[in-house]
Amino acid sequence: MKFSIHNSDNKARRGVIETERGSIQTPAFMPVGTQGTVKAMSPEELREIGAEIILSNTYHLYLRPGHEIIHQLGGIHKFINWDKPILTDSGGFQVYSLSSLRKIREDGVEFRSHLDGSLHFLSPEKAMEIQSMLGSDIAMAFDECTPYPAEYDYAVKSLELTTKWARRCKEFMNSAEARKRGSAEEKTSELPDYRASKLPSLFGIIQGGMYKDLRKRSLEELMEVGFDGYASGGLSVGEPKEEMYETIEFIGPLMPEEKPRYLMGVGDLLDVMTAVENGFDMFDCVMPTRNARNGTLFTSKGRISIKRTEFKADPEPLDPECGCYTCRNYSKAYLRHLFLAKEILSMRLNTIHNLHFYLDFFRKMRDAISNKRFSDFKKHWDGVLKAGAME
Amino acid sequence: MKFSIHNSDNKARRGVIETERGSIQTPAFMPVGTQGTVKAMSPEELREIGAEIILSNTYHLYLRPGHEIIHQLGGIHKFINWDKPILTDSGGFQVYSLSSLRKIREDGVEFRSHLDGSLHFLSPEKAMEIQSMLGSDIAMAFDECTPYPAEYDYAVKSLELTTKWARRCKEFMNSAEARKRGSAEEKTSELPDYRASKLPSLFGIIQGGMYKDLRKRSLEELMEVGFDGYASGGLSVGEPKEEMYETIEFIGPLMPEEKPRYLMGVGDLLDVMTAVENGFDMFDCVMPTRNARNGTLFTSKGRISIKRTEFKADPEPLDPECGCYTCRNYSKAYLRHLFLAKEILSMRLNTIHNLHFYLDFFRKMRDAISNKRFSDFKKHWDGVLKAGAME
Repeated sequence: MKFSIHNSDNKARRGVIETERGSIQTPAFMPVGTQGTVKAMSPEELREIGAEIILSNTYHLYLRPGHEIIHQLGGIHKFINWDKPILTDSGGFQVYSLSSLRKIREDGVEFRSHLDGSLHFLSPEKAMEIQSMLGSDIAMAFDECTPYPAEYDYAVKSLELTTKWARRCKEFMNSAEARKRGSAEEKTSELPDYRASKLPSLFGIIQGGMYKDLRKRSLEELMEVGFDGYASGGLSVGEPKEEMYETIEFIGPLMPEEKPRYLMGVGDLLDVMTAVENGFDMFDCVMPTRNARNGTLFTSKGRISIKRTEFKADPEPLDPECGCYTCRNYSKAYLRHLFLAKEILSMRLNTIHNLHFYLDFFRKMRDAISNKRFSDFKKHWDGVLKAGAME
Repeated sequence: MKFSIHNSDNKARRGVIETERGSIQTPAFMPVGTQGTVKAMSPEELREIGAEIILSNTYHLYLRPGHEIIHQLGGIHKFINWDKPILTDSGGFQVYSLSSLRKIREDGVEFRSHLDGSLHFLSPEKAMEIQSMLGSDIAMAFDECTPYPAEYDYAVKSLELTTKWARRCKEFMNSAEARKRGSAEEKTSELPDYRASKLPSLFGIIQGGMYKDLRKRSLEELMEVGFDGYASGGLSVGEPKEEMYETIEFIGPLMPEEKPRYLMGVGDLLDVMTAVENGFDMFDCVMPTRNARNGTLFTSKGRISIKRTEFKADPEPLDPECGCYTCRNYSKAYLRHLFLAKEILSMRLNTIHNLHFYLDFFRKMRDAISNKRFSDFKKHWDGVLKAGAME
């Protein structure tokens, strides 16, 4: 993986991540394909709207269909028919979300499957093994997501655990790399053979709750270990916006300049702009896809709910300024009809539109950075997005 | 509308229906797009698999979004982004299916909407008006679907009503045609203005229950009125297969040779072959689309249920002999995974495959007729389909 910055506008930066499976323009938005499919979309449709990378969830794929099966079938890309880069999360956040079903220990997390209640154990090593066997392009270190709110003492322990785990992830990858190169260790290894696939790049995840000193410490400890990219985790977990913004503004500029900076799970476009303004490069969020299925659609004039009576006989496209398949071919009246009739095509057309909107927003944002007009861009969209939100 | 027969093999015939919106090779299968969309499919996907005509339901579109709205938006083709022919049913069968919610009278049927319980009235004239305003290419006469079983006396009354209604449909269309040509009646008409759109062709529907003399009488009375095509209704409504086959074998060959013969709602491929053998040309059925969503898939070796454990790690396509998008790009293991995960893409990929299978089956059937090999074709598929059904 190679990362280069081509333009910048104050702290905002435009760059390219180059991987063996293709380039990713940054700031980049990664559509979420939780269970090995971006809900309602085909890979061709993702390509058509310009997606350069998608995210998939280790926890979900581990439970079903299982990473061994995906590995056996030639890896995640072949399995889901997507040949561009895939980033996988570590499973840490999902396991954290299970709350009552999991037990955090020094060596890892014991949890029960949300599908059938079966008992499982995820450790840094296991998370690395799964992501490697999936054939991920970018793997995330296994972290403990510090909840909000968290006492200072808890946040300290949590970050210390995250650092230890991050180190173990890195060590696992190093020895996997060594095994791949055919060192002596190879013969004694009892790990499955996934040497055929290239090992993923590895990103570390900063924790530390809302405590600046702890965020800084977490970052420094990770930098000591050394990763291909750095992510900020534990945000957008229920904290007030101001606290999230403070953390973003604090940690973003401290993160290594020459590596991609990933803000995990944050996708509200107002938040995204604040993060880009502070030097973040990568984002993922279910907002565009989930909203689409619920009939909330993004337009250049703000958000609209497609079920509203005023669209009953509206012959216009969702957004006359939009060039997506949905806007080129269908009226708001038809989209409203499909939504009320609960048709599958409703979810398809809405998802195409919302993801196109997001990826187009990111394209325009990159251009704004190149043209040193990011602050104008932000001012314009601040207004539009806030207007939409008030509806 | 023009219909010509190009080849025949005993009573089976291969022909072409030419409409202003394109040609339809017969025997033809019409995918069902109940609410203005063939469930899970885009129009482009329908075109790619070779659909030449789809069916849509008057009852459903009348209730939601309403035929006035579709008319106002330029007609059903523009509304749903499908420029090839559309056949609309009359609403008669749907209203019949409401059973407890409807009251059949001499002038029409009073019924309550399954959506909100509101009271509606459908008459032959209203059914014609709705289908014309939708901009349908082929409209169906408004009939009373004789239930199974039905006493002889009931079947007589039902067929008499159907004949009367068929005549009223024809008269309505004749006067609409006259109005369209600008006769004197025009000024006094209070009917909505749908002269912009071409009026649909009109098919009559044969009833008569399982009584051969009544089927014959129904057909003769309809032929006296004169229609662009003739359909057999009231089959596949719960009667034993033998009775259905007897009726098909009896009525098919009696229907006018120079007009398309449509067997309504029958889509089991074993039944289709029997009907084609007896001279039927057109078919519709939800079977391929509904089965797809339930994970039952058609292959050249018979039917399979995609959820079966044996496909867990199966790298092969559904059907190596199939050239559809699904089979070109995805393994059975992935299709099983998507189905178990209840992903929208599961319904998409399965529907593409099943509809492709159906349309391909019809293509092969047409070739078999051209090559005077229909009986071999039928023998082969009888075996395959029965094997699949036993699974």
